[in-house]
Amino acid sequence: MCVLGLGLIGGSIMRATAATGREVFGYNRSVEGAQGARSDGFDATTELADALARAADTDALIVLAVPMPALPTMLAHIRELAPNCPLTDVTSVKTAVLDSVASAGLLARFVGGHPMTGTAQSGWGAGHGGLFIRAPWVVSVDDHVDPEVWSMVMTLALDCGALVVPAKSDEHDAAAAVISHLPHLLAEALAVAAAEVPLAFAVAAGSFRDATRVAGTAPDLVRAMCEGNSGQLLPAADRVIELLCRARDSLACNNSVAELAEAGHAARTRYDSFPRSDIVTVVIGAENWREELAAAGRAGGVIRSALPSLDSPR
Amino acid sequence: MCVLGLGLIGGSIMRATAATGREVFGYNRSVEGAQGARSDGFDATTELADALARAADTDALIVLAVPMPALPTMLAHIRELAPNCPLTDVTSVKTAVLDSVASAGLLARFVGGHPMTGTAQSGWGAGHGGLFIRAPWVVSVDDHVDPEVWSMVMTLALDCGALVVPAKSDEHDAAAAVISHLPHLLAEALAVAAAEVPLAFAVAAGSFRDATRVAGTAPDLVRAMCEGNSGQLLPAADRVIELLCRARDSLACNNSVAELAEAGHAARTRYDSFPRSDIVTVVIGAENWREELAAAGRAGGVIRSALPSLDSPR
Repeated sequence: MCVLGLGLIGGSIMRATAATGREVFGYNRSVEGAQGARSDGFDATTELADALARAADTDALIVLAVPMPALPTMLAHIRELAPNCPLTDVTSVKTAVLDSVASAGLLARFVGGHPMTGTAQSGWGAGHGGLFIRAPWVVSVDDHVDPEVWSMVMTLALDCGALVVPAKSDEHDAAAAVISHLPHLLAEALAVAAAEVPLAFAVAAGSFRDATRVAGTAPDLVRAMCEGNSGQLLPAADRVIELLCRARDSLACNNSVAELAEAGHAARTRYDSFPRSDIVTVVIGAENWREELAAAGRAGGVIRSALPSLDSPR
Repeated sequence: MCVLGLGLIGGSIMRATAATGREVFGYNRSVEGAQGARSDGFDATTELADALARAADTDALIVLAVPMPALPTMLAHIRELAPNCPLTDVTSVKTAVLDSVASAGLLARFVGGHPMTGTAQSGWGAGHGGLFIRAPWVVSVDDHVDPEVWSMVMTLALDCGALVVPAKSDEHDAAAAVISHLPHLLAEALAVAAAEVPLAFAVAAGSFRDATRVAGTAPDLVRAMCEGNSGQLLPAADRVIELLCRARDSLACNNSVAELAEAGHAARTRYDSFPRSDIVTVVIGAENWREELAAAGRAGGVIRSALPSLDSPR
């Protein structure tokens, strides 16, 4: 396996997969990152061409773990040096990545992925092999995906201890918009509004600290995720604005926020009791396997141990 | 001291003040609450008239720790049976309480209070003597407040281990709107919007759980705080809606959320480094003491040990 980018996510994948006995090597642009990995006993280089040639020679699964803006350049190098390797990524926006991969002519062997683990830290030193344990890891089941590569990416996520959630890229992005990107905008807006009220910071307690926690994320990261997913974020933002405007008008006209308070409480209660189930009956590569996995993921299903493939021993 | 209402807050005040050696007795409407307090060794009754007669006899400080809707009835009883006792409250909205107290003709001996401690639990059993330790406890410094009663309420909060934040009632309510009431509306709206997206709950992780945590609060409590503070909540909601609409338009037209991401990060950073200072030089009852305390509170000042009074030994 070849990990490109040894930051928080890539570095944690390297540690977690190496611990299962896999052969894994990696590339990092900065000397510090590669040096950090090497001094911890891992196989890392700052020479991209060397890493990609080795991946091509061994038909290694390539994991794109670089930031979104670095993706097009990285894909061009892969196209040149390792065009037939199976390929996945770990980026928080899936449709935009899919488009980039298609533009680079690498779609046939690509299956997107997104481990849902948040932390404010970054870099090799911040990673650890247990980062993905019991975290949802979305693996894309778009119409084009190849069963063999899909199995590889599923196995990678399972080796890292994650729960695999199969999903189509556009559905992932719609969900990420509302559970991750929109909360960032709300936290930012709340922090700005509070900063304008003289006494607010003086009396702020736990609920304000929690509500604005993600406003502590570096603005560049917030921009990358929100702007890379604008197509899905816009309708989510419109919906929240609509709900807030309706509550505001109801408060102004009838001095009541009953509708939003009750709907919000009901929704949160539903989330608390959202049923998780195990996906066990789908055979990868069988007829309609992609649609079956997408439907199962939507219903709360997760893969906890490897599903069989049509051409694998049962 | 006489505590009316022995729920989470009132019950915790009874425990904390009894531990300092004060004589404290209480009233609770429900037999369960009073019984719970008694079996823990406290002096509690379900007879309001008895409690108020005893308060009047001993000139006890009366602490109103009943829910907002019960306040007018309670004030009418106090007006009848203990009209000259010093009086405070612990409610999350201060202007509305001030109006009720004024209507009941009890303003002269009233100083409002609000311990900023949040928890989802309630009832005598949920309380504990350490609930207020290092929590901000707002004590109102409105124009009418009497120095002697103010000192009593300050001492009560300090005896409970709280940090006293002096503030005018309307400023408290503006701050509470933006740091407490508005976050509830945002959490409710986010929970509703997410519930409408098929895959959202399936992939939701820590940041969504944190962002919607307060949507788990009982709708009645959310309504009581939001509707009781609509005058301050409306402009706060308008401001957040305005910020979100601007970010939304910028995302739609320029694919950029730079302005909000940067402003939000800057505001949150300012909150993280908000300076706390100790208020030590104000003398209660001296010229302009109320304005001086309000200004000090606004600037982040807290009272950690009792300030002297003009007529107290220095």
